[in-house]
Amino acid sequence: MSTLHFSHDNILAFDKRYRANFINSLGGFKSLGLIGTVNTAGQTNLAVFNSFFHLGAHPPLFGFIIRPDSVDRHTLSNIEAIGEFTVNQVTEAFFKKAHQTSARYPQDISEFDATGLTPLFNQASKAPFVQESHIQIAASLAERINLAINGTILMIGKIEAVFLPEDCLGSDGFIDLEKAGTIACSGLDSYHTTSRLARLPYAKPEQPIG
Amino acid sequence: MSTLHFSHDNILAFDKRYRANFINSLGGFKSLGLIGTVNTAGQTNLAVFNSFFHLGAHPPLFGFIIRPDSVDRHTLSNIEAIGEFTVNQVTEAFFKKAHQTSARYPQDISEFDATGLTPLFNQASKAPFVQESHIQIAASLAERINLAINGTILMIGKIEAVFLPEDCLGSDGFIDLEKAGTIACSGLDSYHTTSRLARLPYAKPEQPIG
Repeated sequence: MSTLHFSHDNILAFDKRYRANFINSLGGFKSLGLIGTVNTAGQTNLAVFNSFFHLGAHPPLFGFIIRPDSVDRHTLSNIEAIGEFTVNQVTEAFFKKAHQTSARYPQDISEFDATGLTPLFNQASKAPFVQESHIQIAASLAERINLAINGTILMIGKIEAVFLPEDCLGSDGFIDLEKAGTIACSGLDSYHTTSRLARLPYAKPEQPIG
Repeated sequence: MSTLHFSHDNILAFDKRYRANFINSLGGFKSLGLIGTVNTAGQTNLAVFNSFFHLGAHPPLFGFIIRPDSVDRHTLSNIEAIGEFTVNQVTEAFFKKAHQTSARYPQDISEFDATGLTPLFNQASKAPFVQESHIQIAASLAERINLAINGTILMIGKIEAVFLPEDCLGSDGFIDLEKAGTIACSGLDSYHTTSRLARLPYAKPEQPIG
């Protein structure tokens, strides 16, 4: 199998869409979540994101990236107006609906209505959860950091509440995402189920490998 | 299947290790990469990370999080000293060795030697690649942002060069990570192969779902 080599200049010379596919694929498999928000008029919004990352466990924090020029702009303005949002993991049963939330609907159309996903309100958040989702997180906006390097925005969320199926939570706090039906994505548009190879013990220098 | 509900206060009251497993699992499936670095004395270092995220395609940028109190500290000081590093995707063939790089080896021990992974040097980077890896990225440090909220560090890398198998690159720039053997992870210690459900077309409001 021959190896291809691309330099920075090669990448800059790619066609725009080709480069977007290439660079978005390059980072490996990614998490996938639907962010539910609401504006001050009560209009709901739902948008799919794939840039979530762990930031810390105590306090429980995560980050994700918003591009201000994208359809995510309703998500951004709603989070800033209300201060709360939800993150809902995606399963095989509704990944096509999750993907469809990335279409550029007008602001007065809720992606819940457009896709047929069900908004669920409870006391844990002012924002709607996705009823079809098995793992649901209520979050508050802890910090917004503008990244001058390319105009994107790092949003830091604090985990306010978690809902998950009882049989997916292990005795050590590990959550079995496969059992919960959570899927992964790659690139801009590729969706994947997973199969566990192993959980490995805490690594120590004196411990042999394998 | 009954649903469990945990509040922010419940999570803060968890045992430390339980909370680390819980919150690290909660974000969904994650990318996995070995970061190769070298210090000014030529000592190599290799460390596994799972917080990579896409930041932009033009210029090609990605981010990841370093915890200054972790074994990643050699990675941090080496990247700052040299300005260059590599990111190497992990396959099923060597994921146990990748995990083992998270052990707290003394600074004078290279994780390449300790795990048996092979350093590969070429003109694309001052830092070593992992020869066993099928998708290898040469990166430079574009920016370091200290996150005051919890003392972690956001590192922004610029993609300087990419090496990948020819048969994994599609005509539209999409990289087939499954064909390249790239695996995903979840939590702190769980590793997963994937199986593609579908690639979906660019979503448009007037386009029916499914």
